[in-house]
Amino acid sequence: MSEKLTLYEYTHSGNSYKVLLTAELLHIPLRRVFVDIVKGESRTEEFLAMNPAGQVPLLRLADGSFLSQSHAIIWYLASGSHLIPTDRTALASVLQWMSFEQYNLEPSIGVLRYKIYSAGMSKQELSDIYDGLFEKGHAALGVLELALTHSSFLVEERFTLADIALFGYTHCTEQSSLSLEDYPNIRRWLERVKSIENFASLESFLQ
Amino acid sequence: MSEKLTLYEYTHSGNSYKVLLTAELLHIPLRRVFVDIVKGESRTEEFLAMNPAGQVPLLRLADGSFLSQSHAIIWYLASGSHLIPTDRTALASVLQWMSFEQYNLEPSIGVLRYKIYSAGMSKQELSDIYDGLFEKGHAALGVLELALTHSSFLVEERFTLADIALFGYTHCTEQSSLSLEDYPNIRRWLERVKSIENFASLESFLQ
Repeated sequence: MSEKLTLYEYTHSGNSYKVLLTAELLHIPLRRVFVDIVKGESRTEEFLAMNPAGQVPLLRLADGSFLSQSHAIIWYLASGSHLIPTDRTALASVLQWMSFEQYNLEPSIGVLRYKIYSAGMSKQELSDIYDGLFEKGHAALGVLELALTHSSFLVEERFTLADIALFGYTHCTEQSSLSLEDYPNIRRWLERVKSIENFASLESFLQ
Repeated sequence: MSEKLTLYEYTHSGNSYKVLLTAELLHIPLRRVFVDIVKGESRTEEFLAMNPAGQVPLLRLADGSFLSQSHAIIWYLASGSHLIPTDRTALASVLQWMSFEQYNLEPSIGVLRYKIYSAGMSKQELSDIYDGLFEKGHAALGVLELALTHSSFLVEERFTLADIALFGYTHCTEQSSLSLEDYPNIRRWLERVKSIENFASLESFLQ
């Protein structure tokens, strides 16, 4: 099955990276198709026919159907693996952190990173237009920092999909012009994730 | 177990309603604690000690631990029930729609509704400040409308958690000052959800 999976992705995006990293960790081969969202390639008629929401990553399954949303895709890939706890409460905690990421962290740190790193805006321009985003980003980092005070990983003291989902954008916080200086627990956790067996950096997928 | 579950909720919110509706459909009794977010009750020291993200709904489990994020909570409640498909692809599709809701629909329609319905802002004030939200709301409704063209429900032609997650805010789109006139498939789907056995309206929980 897995050889027939095709991933439409914008490698620079944390959301696409989550999928590439999950597949790498689980040794799932993916056929990769680069979609340049900065050039509008996710808004073409052809792409919208595959995903009307016009977003990457997008996974084409073996039966020809499509799955969108990074967290749904990594859940699909990791189904039945050690990355998803079987315990009901632990599994719900993984989903809690994934929702937190999509609702609190990605819309602040992810959006800031895109505007600065991909669209080339300055921090000053961003402050003028999206002032609340910096505050929202720090609020999200504060919640993450607190959760990692006494824990090595986000759920059950072991590496799960929750860590992959949060790592996606948190590891490039500095590209969003926010400093991690005041977040020592996050910095230690980032290093812990990087030392997981078969870990691959975002940069390694750009090559 | 279920008698010891406590839900901290702001009943007017679509996110809290999703949890109340899921519990009702599955006959799970919840002890309810109303948290008036408009009065800042989700930002008190006491509340932040339970949920550092300062958000409702929040579920206190039988072991005294807390679960936040509406979609994680409804997944926990519906675990093992007919509301979550067991098929890998269908389960991932449910997660896809839940992510779509949290990323595309709730931040537009949910936020507009809160500003108008709870915070009392006028549509004109909102247009001045958050002009992109109306456009984003219509884009999300457009994706939903298209998905419901040939389907009775969002996944597998049957009622699942995905429908509950999307119903939460979509059913009160008009309170967000967006019209559903151009979305006949959505209007029919809303009626279909309302006719599910044991369905309970948001208003019924306000009494």
